[in-house]
Amino acid sequence: MERVRTTELAAHVGERVAMHGWLHRLRRLGGINFLALRDGWGIAQAVIDDPEELAKVAPLHDESVLALEGLVTAEPQAPGGYELRDTRVRVLVPAEEPPPFELNKRVLKPSLDVFLEHAPIGLRHPQKRAIFRLGAGIVHAFRSYLRSQGFTEIQSPKLVEAATEGGANVFPVDYLGRTAYLAQSPQFYKQIMVGVFERVFEVGPVFRAEPHNTARHINEYVSLDVEMGFIHDHHTVMGLLTEVIRAIIQHLAESHREELALLDAHLPSVPEIIPSVYFPDALEMISQATGRDVRGEPDLAPEDERWLGAWAEAEHGSDWVFVTGFPLAKRPFYTHPDPGDPTYSNSFDLLFRGTELVTGGQRLHRYGDYVAALESRGIDPTPFASYLEVFRHGMPPHGGFAIGLERFLMQLLGLGNIREATLFPRDLTRLSP
Amino acid sequence: MERVRTTELAAHVGERVAMHGWLHRLRRLGGINFLALRDGWGIAQAVIDDPEELAKVAPLHDESVLALEGLVTAEPQAPGGYELRDTRVRVLVPAEEPPPFELNKRVLKPSLDVFLEHAPIGLRHPQKRAIFRLGAGIVHAFRSYLRSQGFTEIQSPKLVEAATEGGANVFPVDYLGRTAYLAQSPQFYKQIMVGVFERVFEVGPVFRAEPHNTARHINEYVSLDVEMGFIHDHHTVMGLLTEVIRAIIQHLAESHREELALLDAHLPSVPEIIPSVYFPDALEMISQATGRDVRGEPDLAPEDERWLGAWAEAEHGSDWVFVTGFPLAKRPFYTHPDPGDPTYSNSFDLLFRGTELVTGGQRLHRYGDYVAALESRGIDPTPFASYLEVFRHGMPPHGGFAIGLERFLMQLLGLGNIREATLFPRDLTRLSP
Repeated sequence: MERVRTTELAAHVGERVAMHGWLHRLRRLGGINFLALRDGWGIAQAVIDDPEELAKVAPLHDESVLALEGLVTAEPQAPGGYELRDTRVRVLVPAEEPPPFELNKRVLKPSLDVFLEHAPIGLRHPQKRAIFRLGAGIVHAFRSYLRSQGFTEIQSPKLVEAATEGGANVFPVDYLGRTAYLAQSPQFYKQIMVGVFERVFEVGPVFRAEPHNTARHINEYVSLDVEMGFIHDHHTVMGLLTEVIRAIIQHLAESHREELALLDAHLPSVPEIIPSVYFPDALEMISQATGRDVRGEPDLAPEDERWLGAWAEAEHGSDWVFVTGFPLAKRPFYTHPDPGDPTYSNSFDLLFRGTELVTGGQRLHRYGDYVAALESRGIDPTPFASYLEVFRHGMPPHGGFAIGLERFLMQLLGLGNIREATLFPRDLTRLSP
Repeated sequence: MERVRTTELAAHVGERVAMHGWLHRLRRLGGINFLALRDGWGIAQAVIDDPEELAKVAPLHDESVLALEGLVTAEPQAPGGYELRDTRVRVLVPAEEPPPFELNKRVLKPSLDVFLEHAPIGLRHPQKRAIFRLGAGIVHAFRSYLRSQGFTEIQSPKLVEAATEGGANVFPVDYLGRTAYLAQSPQFYKQIMVGVFERVFEVGPVFRAEPHNTARHINEYVSLDVEMGFIHDHHTVMGLLTEVIRAIIQHLAESHREELALLDAHLPSVPEIIPSVYFPDALEMISQATGRDVRGEPDLAPEDERWLGAWAEAEHGSDWVFVTGFPLAKRPFYTHPDPGDPTYSNSFDLLFRGTELVTGGQRLHRYGDYVAALESRGIDPTPFASYLEVFRHGMPPHGGFAIGLERFLMQLLGLGNIREATLFPRDLTRLSP
């Protein structure tokens, strides 16, 4: 008998089918025994009439692994509209103890700390796993759109000889007797690969040895990186990013309705043109509106981002707003200056619901400009020799961006902590599970 | 004027178009100046008649970045059948010196060492970049097939508290004052996630601190990992793997003809059922055929793999052969024994053209079996506590496999060294570029 998934019952009404999964819940209601079976995709209800069958499951702990067999019946009262009747049970693997917390409540009760401690079990909760299925959807749509635009996927090394930004916050690795570092970003490699493929993307882990403990930072996260050649300036990159975001939201809307409903999440719309504010103008607007004088500040504070998010929502009905032209001195050395005013840069952040989600911009593409930029910042160019080599051999104007996957999920779902959007977060205190 | 790619000329005959790219070669043949322009996808030929235009490009080093404009003309003699005439040239970024080796020869001349030293430039060579476009194709087809079968993509942490196999060969990381390790595989996480999604896959870096220097090992590589629940035994996994391989080969055949031709690569066919040999039988066959008595050996030596590859080719016309039932003691502690003879295991290797490409098998799924397996191997279970926890809460029979991406490319293309199939290899001596 072929196995049928819990989400496929509608196609099998009147047939006897096999289902596999976990004992999500067994309860007696109005004299009837209902077994909720959870498999990898959903939950289905089975009615257990036969005392012999009931005797098999009654003593089991939740999460025991079962094989059921029964008659698929339309039942408007059943969750999903179908249930299994005349159910026979085979216990494949009994659980040895009750779960550390109740996985069959609509919302999980334990604190985040307790949840994370037992994440290998807790992630089985339908709401929790929905988060990560949405994460997989984001990554899929990201790749799929970029492939359709001629981008090639790359896999760059995570063990590197030098820190990407020439700064601190890198994890040292004992590499066969030498010191290596964990890559903070695939920045150098994606730029190098523009010389090869013109258009590249990468989905991979990045590592930040920042010893802070906030609700929106973790020390290892998944970065969705893009880089493209032959751009006009950073606006070309912002145009691409807008379409990437649009493709992701559209894919979630089309293919992840159930997960979104389970999490009571509301997808943002993506305007044809995302509103954009020039950095100095943003500071001016914030100063005038709030009375807090932020003119001359080198960067946006979190409250500034929130103000701009609210402004974009109120003025443009947009969950999204670009801020462009950050001061050059505050951006990494490879950032291209604004040709009209080199105090500022051809860079941007994309804020989503008042929080920075994406950073990007145009990069320098001439060797001499790199040498000058490193020198003016007092950075030793030696460790960057093989990165700098490509700029002696013809690099087109290029730029790109990076989206933090967990940050995206957190903002999209209104989660209070980025750890809720990370399968197994790494932070000041957590290296396991 | 919209930019047209070098591979799109056929659709624009009779039009004036813009093309962007790199000066691949400029040469004079029979009194005509031909400029080969390489962009991210191919190479197109442009005829330069006007002495003023010629004067712009004649002094340039190869790899200078150009914008061309010209009339697309069908020309049977031109590579690809089309060329640009009446060409106007704009030099976007002149190269500052000649490339470290000639990128416009059909085959690159330098030694592997010299090539790797200058890989950021060398990868622009059409044959070299074809290798990595095929790599991207493998990864795409892998994901695409698995998604179609209900698998969910996961991203597991690469910073871990304990070594996966409880053994050596892990890179230690200075993690904010503690010692962490780089994950040798996502094994524990993919098993944990079977409890959540039933079917999962991951594409990500893995790290092996093995201090050897061979043509088929590197210290960081890309692992294509799969794990699935509710299997009968390892044969269920082998069935899935066969279809994954079939989907990959089919995708390359359909979407990567040009890259395959450029590399003179011949795709293997994938038999309906890949031939399979039981490990003890394999040793018996090898012993009888070669006179080398390998009966009782705990594992296959490289020459044994080659013999089995040749046998599968001769006997079954197959580039592929499964070896099943490796001795349990030689496989990791989570390996499921053969219920019929627990000296052996429900594990397999898939050999491709005489080299191990994939390792996989059924895993233990009961808590007590894990405790016993760790104890019998003298491995301290403490560091595995949160991994082991899931087996107290109902884990179905499950199994999976891992394909090494670079190894696959190497075997598929007949490359002599795995470093040729790795963008920026990490080994005993290489941490850069």
